[in-house]
Amino acid sequence: MNWTLAARAAKMNPSVIREILKVTERPGIISFAGGLPSPLTFPVAEFQAACARVLTSDGAGALQYAASEGYGPLREQVAAQLPWKVSPSQVLITTGSQQGLDLVAKVMIDPGSRVLVETPTYLGALQAFSPMEPDVVGVESDDEGVSAEDLARRAGEGAGRARFAYLLPNFQNPTGRTMSEARRAAVVEAAARVGLPLLEDNPYGELWFDAPPPPPLTARHPEGSLYLGSFSKVLAPGLRLGFLVAPPALYPKLLQAKQAADLHTPGFNQRMVAEVMKDGFLDRHVPTIRALYKSQRDAMLAALSREMAGLDVTWNVPVGGMFLWARLPQGVDSAQLLLEAVERNVAFVPGAAFYAQGADPRTIRLSFVTSTVAQIDTGIAELARTLREHVSRRT
Amino acid sequence: MNWTLAARAAKMNPSVIREILKVTERPGIISFAGGLPSPLTFPVAEFQAACARVLTSDGAGALQYAASEGYGPLREQVAAQLPWKVSPSQVLITTGSQQGLDLVAKVMIDPGSRVLVETPTYLGALQAFSPMEPDVVGVESDDEGVSAEDLARRAGEGAGRARFAYLLPNFQNPTGRTMSEARRAAVVEAAARVGLPLLEDNPYGELWFDAPPPPPLTARHPEGSLYLGSFSKVLAPGLRLGFLVAPPALYPKLLQAKQAADLHTPGFNQRMVAEVMKDGFLDRHVPTIRALYKSQRDAMLAALSREMAGLDVTWNVPVGGMFLWARLPQGVDSAQLLLEAVERNVAFVPGAAFYAQGADPRTIRLSFVTSTVAQIDTGIAELARTLREHVSRRT
Repeated sequence: MNWTLAARAAKMNPSVIREILKVTERPGIISFAGGLPSPLTFPVAEFQAACARVLTSDGAGALQYAASEGYGPLREQVAAQLPWKVSPSQVLITTGSQQGLDLVAKVMIDPGSRVLVETPTYLGALQAFSPMEPDVVGVESDDEGVSAEDLARRAGEGAGRARFAYLLPNFQNPTGRTMSEARRAAVVEAAARVGLPLLEDNPYGELWFDAPPPPPLTARHPEGSLYLGSFSKVLAPGLRLGFLVAPPALYPKLLQAKQAADLHTPGFNQRMVAEVMKDGFLDRHVPTIRALYKSQRDAMLAALSREMAGLDVTWNVPVGGMFLWARLPQGVDSAQLLLEAVERNVAFVPGAAFYAQGADPRTIRLSFVTSTVAQIDTGIAELARTLREHVSRRT
Repeated sequence: MNWTLAARAAKMNPSVIREILKVTERPGIISFAGGLPSPLTFPVAEFQAACARVLTSDGAGALQYAASEGYGPLREQVAAQLPWKVSPSQVLITTGSQQGLDLVAKVMIDPGSRVLVETPTYLGALQAFSPMEPDVVGVESDDEGVSAEDLARRAGEGAGRARFAYLLPNFQNPTGRTMSEARRAAVVEAAARVGLPLLEDNPYGELWFDAPPPPPLTARHPEGSLYLGSFSKVLAPGLRLGFLVAPPALYPKLLQAKQAADLHTPGFNQRMVAEVMKDGFLDRHVPTIRALYKSQRDAMLAALSREMAGLDVTWNVPVGGMFLWARLPQGVDSAQLLLEAVERNVAFVPGAAFYAQGADPRTIRLSFVTSTVAQIDTGIAELARTLREHVSRRT
């Protein structure tokens, strides 16, 4: 048969993380690899009640084709909860916020278009962008995210101007780092000055441990920003519900891309979530997630201090979210170490997958939310043992 | 702000049908426009029971991130129900079959690639393909679908060879027509002879009235075909569940496109449908849909015969599905007539939207499934009155 694939298909690759996750699904493995929220946080009873109410009150409406924009009451709830003035007409409900990345890529990226990303950045964004064949450029970044100066420097000019900068300011995936107030102000000032649109992704913003993060970039610069949000981390990822907030001038094209992509996000799921969220459920529920994840972060930090002593491993202290970022001793390739760690029933994601350019092979991403405290203790101890043997073999 | 859109965004357009549907949502209107299944056919009680069972038995599993391929037991059910040998590993669960069109477009269409379609064809397919900027070529078609000879003639050669032909053999949208056994054999023979891949779309195949349609094209030519199916017409569209069956060589790229598009189709919805379908529910349920839709088709045929007498209107007699295709008298533009019909509280879709080239402005699509028999009687009478006045004003 004469199957001829599009050139862009060559740019598509299997997700490194999904491939690792397959390995780590085997029983007995302790996985710090996946970005899976703790199932303890899923409000199953509330979903059960909401499901019954939705089907009883308007089953036909919930099961019928629906508007591509999303379910009206859910769009209103989203607009009302955001910390800047947003009209429900600017809210597009998406099939997970991953779909928001796909829609923005389709509408904004031509082959060869420059797109700026953090160093490192969310792998799923690179995968969503790459079929549209952009020139993805990593911006210099530190433990607060991108450098405002380098962002402006790499924005380009004229026809070569970057279509947008993709930024994840809160508890970033993969590093767990957060942009300070001062950095946010500088990034927005720089973007506005050079006319660089921002694509802000905020799936983790509610998962802060001691104090909420500073307001979003979009709140400071709404006409120059697209904003992605998600219900995956505050309710449950298996419903695939996210949203995109767009300036009025851009909304129609994103909506047309949405229609063509899947007609609309499941109306049943939208109504269930709208039902669960009414009466302020998230105000009661999200603090329980914060407390759980904070205790697991603390357990991981304690285990790292205890087990990695003398091993020349460094790590950061995320103030929210799901991930911690660590760096192995000089000369250690984390992809190689993973193979040995899996033999000891512990897994993580090698950091190299998250870089647009200039990957640091010593980095690793550790999720502290999927495992219990006991598993964290055991897993980090095994990881340290693996690393110690790995290093001793090399010397 | 310097928002620069991708060139492909200019190819995206609002759906004519969705715009019409907005007009027809006003109370009191009788709409033959939308492709909405009758809500009488939605098994609400079964969904309620399934939802409770899914959340009780494995709520955490249903609400967690899941495999991009789809839920294993659902993939097995799909493979088992298809009338040719399909491995579950060839089944990709999609967020509605519309997403299947989007994934195939991404993986198979380069800018300028030739894509063959029926005349007329499903508007949503044109919308899914167009962002990838194909050269869409309409193939000569009659009341059985495409001409096998013209299909072969227009397939092209070498670098200009069509990437695929998109065909909807059963109760086609928009025409309601069905390919005969002989035509299917001829189409498959021609496609195999010239090395033309087929993209077969079969959302309506189960909705036959008196006898099942002949086996799918893909059953005759599985290595040269991609097949799209849907649960929207046999269970409910609001869950957005469809599937794609691909030859093993093509599956990995489609899966990678799926990962990038929305990570996976909602696992909760997949489990609900798998739960509803087990124990042969569809074998009991689908015959009730067939009987209902047949009675509504009969009502529309009777109303057309009664009301359109002497008006030089022609129409076909679909043997399944949801749509009937009619042609207005010479010189009548159906888009113009729609404006007058809406004034009389009746709506339809002008046929011109469904053509890749050479639109026939006299054609209209009438859905007979959304309205009751009483509404069909009233609506067709009003439509005839509108047409009679329209014609008399012209003469």
